[in-house]
Amino acid sequence: MLLRNAWYVAAWSSEIPVDELLARTILNVPVALWRESSGKVVAFEDRCCHRGAPLSKGRLEGDQLRCMYHGLLFDTTGRCVEIPGQERIPPQAKVRTFPVVEKHKWIWIWVGDASLADPSQIPDTHWLDDPEWRSLEGYTYYTTNYLLIADNLLDLAHLPYVHPNTLGGDEAYAACIPQVEKLENGVRVTRWGEGIKPAPFVQKIKNYPGAVDRWNIYDFVLPSIFLMDSGMQPSGHNAKAGNRVNAAEFRSTQALTPETDESTHYFFSQPHNFAIDDPEVTLAIHNQVVTAFQEDSDMIHAQDRMLKLTSDFKMIPIGADAALSYFRWLVANAYKAEQAISNPVKIQEV
Amino acid sequence: MLLRNAWYVAAWSSEIPVDELLARTILNVPVALWRESSGKVVAFEDRCCHRGAPLSKGRLEGDQLRCMYHGLLFDTTGRCVEIPGQERIPPQAKVRTFPVVEKHKWIWIWVGDASLADPSQIPDTHWLDDPEWRSLEGYTYYTTNYLLIADNLLDLAHLPYVHPNTLGGDEAYAACIPQVEKLENGVRVTRWGEGIKPAPFVQKIKNYPGAVDRWNIYDFVLPSIFLMDSGMQPSGHNAKAGNRVNAAEFRSTQALTPETDESTHYFFSQPHNFAIDDPEVTLAIHNQVVTAFQEDSDMIHAQDRMLKLTSDFKMIPIGADAALSYFRWLVANAYKAEQAISNPVKIQEV
Amino acid sequence: MLLRNAWYVAAWSSEIPVDELLARTILNVPVALWRESSGKVVAFEDRCCHRGAPLSKGRLEGDQLRCMYHGLLFDTTGRCVEIPGQERIPPQAKVRTFPVVEKHKWIWIWVGDASLADPSQIPDTHWLDDPEWRSLEGYTYYTTNYLLIADNLLDLAHLPYVHPNTLGGDEAYAACIPQVEKLENGVRVTRWGEGIKPAPFVQKIKNYPGAVDRWNIYDFVLPSIFLMDSGMQPSGHNAKAGNRVNAAEFRSTQALTPETDESTHYFFSQPHNFAIDDPEVTLAIHNQVVTAFQEDSDMIHAQDRMLKLTSDFKMIPIGADAALSYFRWLVANAYKAEQAISNPVKIQEV
Repeated sequence: MLLRNAWYVAAWSSEIPVDELLARTILNVPVALWRESSGKVVAFEDRCCHRGAPLSKGRLEGDQLRCMYHGLLFDTTGRCVEIPGQERIPPQAKVRTFPVVEKHKWIWIWVGDASLADPSQIPDTHWLDDPEWRSLEGYTYYTTNYLLIADNLLDLAHLPYVHPNTLGGDEAYAACIPQVEKLENGVRVTRWGEGIKPAPFVQKIKNYPGAVDRWNIYDFVLPSIFLMDSGMQPSGHNAKAGNRVNAAEFRSTQALTPETDESTHYFFSQPHNFAIDDPEVTLAIHNQVVTAFQEDSDMIHAQDRMLKLTSDFKMIPIGADAALSYFRWLVANAYKAEQAISNPVKIQEV
Repeated sequence: MLLRNAWYVAAWSSEIPVDELLARTILNVPVALWRESSGKVVAFEDRCCHRGAPLSKGRLEGDQLRCMYHGLLFDTTGRCVEIPGQERIPPQAKVRTFPVVEKHKWIWIWVGDASLADPSQIPDTHWLDDPEWRSLEGYTYYTTNYLLIADNLLDLAHLPYVHPNTLGGDEAYAACIPQVEKLENGVRVTRWGEGIKPAPFVQKIKNYPGAVDRWNIYDFVLPSIFLMDSGMQPSGHNAKAGNRVNAAEFRSTQALTPETDESTHYFFSQPHNFAIDDPEVTLAIHNQVVTAFQEDSDMIHAQDRMLKLTSDFKMIPIGADAALSYFRWLVANAYKAEQAISNPVKIQEV
Repeated sequence: MLLRNAWYVAAWSSEIPVDELLARTILNVPVALWRESSGKVVAFEDRCCHRGAPLSKGRLEGDQLRCMYHGLLFDTTGRCVEIPGQERIPPQAKVRTFPVVEKHKWIWIWVGDASLADPSQIPDTHWLDDPEWRSLEGYTYYTTNYLLIADNLLDLAHLPYVHPNTLGGDEAYAACIPQVEKLENGVRVTRWGEGIKPAPFVQKIKNYPGAVDRWNIYDFVLPSIFLMDSGMQPSGHNAKAGNRVNAAEFRSTQALTPETDESTHYFFSQPHNFAIDDPEVTLAIHNQVVTAFQEDSDMIHAQDRMLKLTSDFKMIPIGADAALSYFRWLVANAYKAEQAISNPVKIQEV
C-alpha cells in the first residue's frame, strides 16, 4: 500500500555532491540522483532506456550523463543525445526523470504522476537549516514496510519501554493520555506529562534537579512525515500554557520513504535551540537519538518477523491506537483514491 | 505435514533459568518460555496480543510478564492485567498459552488443541536424569523438514557409510538385516551384528581386543521421538539372549521438533551406564556423538538440496526402507486424521 | 528458456582428476562427474536413485561408485550392482547417466534427449590445446540468466565503456559499425577499427608506438558458445585484407552453461600465438581478461538487479542490437521446437 502521488525525501543534500551519482530505490523505482553544473538536482530512472543498465554507474560529462555499458549519452531532461555508431536517435530513446525539490537540506522527489507534483505541498522543515537551531543528519534503513515504523511514531507510549535509557525514562509518561486531533492529511498528537522524571538523554545535558513537565506535540502527515515540537523543563512554570523556562526544546524532523514494499529509508534529525554554539551538545543529542532509533529498529524488525511467521495473527486494539488507526485509515483512503484514478471504473453502457 | 496434536520437546530445562525468557518457534508458532516464581514453566505465544511484538523481549515482573513495546502486562494465564493509560482491560486482551510439562530435563509442549493434551502420553526418557546413567545435553538445528531426519534414524544401515570414524565402523553391520515391528504409534527396529569390529567411538574407550556383538534396538514413535537401547560387547557371551558382559551400553534419547515446515530443532543425549564416575568418558562419548551428528547433518542437508532442485525425482524403494516407509505412513494417517477433525466434512443435506 | 538438446561445457578437464568427484549443476540437473580407470569421464545424475543423496559425496571403488549414505554401489552405466543387506537388485535401481565428450581440455555434456546427442556438433575449440597457442583456464560464475551474458558478448560496443583500462581503450571503437551475418545456428559479427589507439591489455605487452587496426571477428553459436579471432596490429599494413604484421592475435574461446534459470557457469580462455614461450605474457593476458570479466560481471549483475526490480521496464532497441536480437530470436525458435517435440500437439479426431 504505497502512495505514489506524494513528495518523499530521497536524500540529504550532502549525499549528492557535485560530480557524483547517488543510486537509491524509491517506491520500487531505481533512481540515479546527480547535480547539473548549476547545482540543480536531477533524478533519472536508474535504468538506461536501452538495456536497463544502471545509470548511477555512468559517467557525468558536464550537464550530460553517459551510460557506461554501451555509451548512450543523455541530457538533463533524460533525452538521449548520442548513440555510438548511430546517426539517428529514436525519439523514444529517453530515460524517465522525476520532479525534484531541494529544500532545507532535504532532496524531495515525486515518483508518481508528475502532473500532480505541487512543490507547495512540501511540509515546512526549516529547522534543519535555521540558524537558531542545530542538528546533525541521520539516516537508517529498515527491512520492513514503512507502516510498522509509522505505527511506532504514532504511539509514544512506547518511549519508556523501548527507550528506558535514552528517550524514555519515567514509565508514568506512558500512562499520560495524549490528545489526538484529525487533520485533513494527517493527525496531530499532543502528549503532556507533568511532574515526572526527565528523559535520560536530556538529563545527561541539563541535569535538572527535580521533576519536569514534558511534551511531545507532533503532526504526522501523509505520506509519512513526522514533525514534532518536543521538550521538557522544570515543573512549576506552566509549560502547558506556553511559558517555556529553562527548557530543552527540540523540533524532531523525520521522514519515512519506502524503498520497496518491504524496506524503508528513514531520514531523521533532532534540532535543538539551546547550547547551539556547543557542537558537543549537538553531537551528544544526535548520538542518543541514533542509539534510541536502533532500539526502535530492533523492536520493529522483531515485531515484523513475528507478524510474518503466520497470517492468522489478530491484533487487539487498545485506546492508545487512536492516532495510528486514523492514520492507517487515511493511507487506505488515499491509496484507494490513487487506484481509482489509475484504473478508472468503466461505465456500463445500457 | 506437521502433526499439531502431539507433545514436542521445546527445550532443555537448563535453557530456561529463572528470570530469563527463551524465544523458540515450534510448528510455525513463536513461543516465549519462562518460569513462574514457583519454578513452573510457562509458554506464551511470543506475540503480544496488541501489535504482535515479541514477548520474549519483555520484562519479567515476578509472576507477570510485561511487553516492552507499549507496556501491556500479562499474568501467567496470558490475561492482560494492565494497559498503560487505560482503565478498562478488554476481555479479549489475552495472549495464547500452551500446555507445558517438565520431565527428566526436557520441557515438553503441546501447541495443538489443548483439550487433547494428555501428559501421560509423554514417552519415558528417565535415562536423562537417572543416577545410574550419565549424559550431556545435545542440541542441533536443521534447515530441512523433520522427516528427512526421521528417515535417517529409521535406517541405521547408514552407520558405517556416514560415520566410518565415529558411530559406524564395520561395513558388515550395514548388511545385517534388522527386524521391524509395527507399533500402534511408531515402529520398533532391532538390528544385531555378531562377530563384527567395534564402532570407533566405543573402541576409543573400551579398546576391545577382538570382535564384538553389536545391537541397536529402538522405538521411533509419533510425532518424532527416538528411544534406543544400543551397545556392544565382546562376542561369545550370548548378548542376544540378554547376557550383557563387559558391555558398552547406551540409551540414546532423541527428539525432533519442527520449527517450521523446513527447519527442525534436534534435541539429543547419549546416556551410558559404565564409567559413570568418570566425566571424561561422558564428555568423550558426547563429543563423538556431536561429531557424528554433524556428519548426518552434512549428508541430510546435501540430500535436501538435491531433492529441492527439481520436483521430478523419483525415489526407488529398497528393503531397508521398511521402517521408514511404515513411519511415513503413520505420519500421513495421523495428519489426515487431524485435518478431518479441524475441517469436518459437511454432510450434504437432501 | 533453457535449451536442453545441446552440448554444454560441464568442466575443464583438469577439474576432474582421477579418483575425485566433481559436483556441478547443469540446466537444473545435479551432476556428479568422475573418471573410469581408463580415464574416460562419466557423468551421473548426482542423486542416488534410492533417496536422492548426492553421489558426488560418494566413494570411488575402481570403476564403481558407492553412495555413502546407505552404501548402494553403481557401475559406470549407472546400474546398481550392490545393496547392503539385500540379494535381489531391482532393475529400476539405476542412476541416470549423461553423454560426455572430452575434447581440447573441455568436458562437454548433453543433459537432454540422449538419442539426439551427436558429438560431431561440438564446435571446434582446438586453440585450447594447440601447441601454436597458449592460454590459461578461466572460470567465473554468474547469478543471472545466461542470456544477459550472451547479450554482452553480442555487442562489443561495450568494450571502451565497461573496460576502459583492460580490453577497451579508444571510445572511437564503439562507434565502428560491425557487420552482422546470420548463421543457421548462430551469428557472425565482424568489427574493424582502423587507426585507433590500442587496447590497454595489449599495449602493456606490445607497446605499439602509434595507431593500430583492431578486429573482433566471432561466431556466437547455439546454445551459447563464443569463438573469436581478435587482435590488433600497427596501422598501415592492410590488416583487413588478411595481412597480419606484428599482430597481437587471440582466439578467445568462451562457453556459457546455465546452472539454473538464474545462474550460469562461464568457462573462458584467451589463447594467443605470440610470445608463446613466455609464460609471463600468457599469465599477464589471462589476468587482464580475468579483471575485464569481473568488470562485465559487475555491470551485468547490476543490470539484472535493475531489470528484476519491476516487470514494467521496456527496452528501446538501437542499431547495435542487431546481433543480439537475432540470437535471441534463434534461441526462442529452438526453444519452441524443443517444446513441440516434448509436448506434441494431439491431433483432433473427427
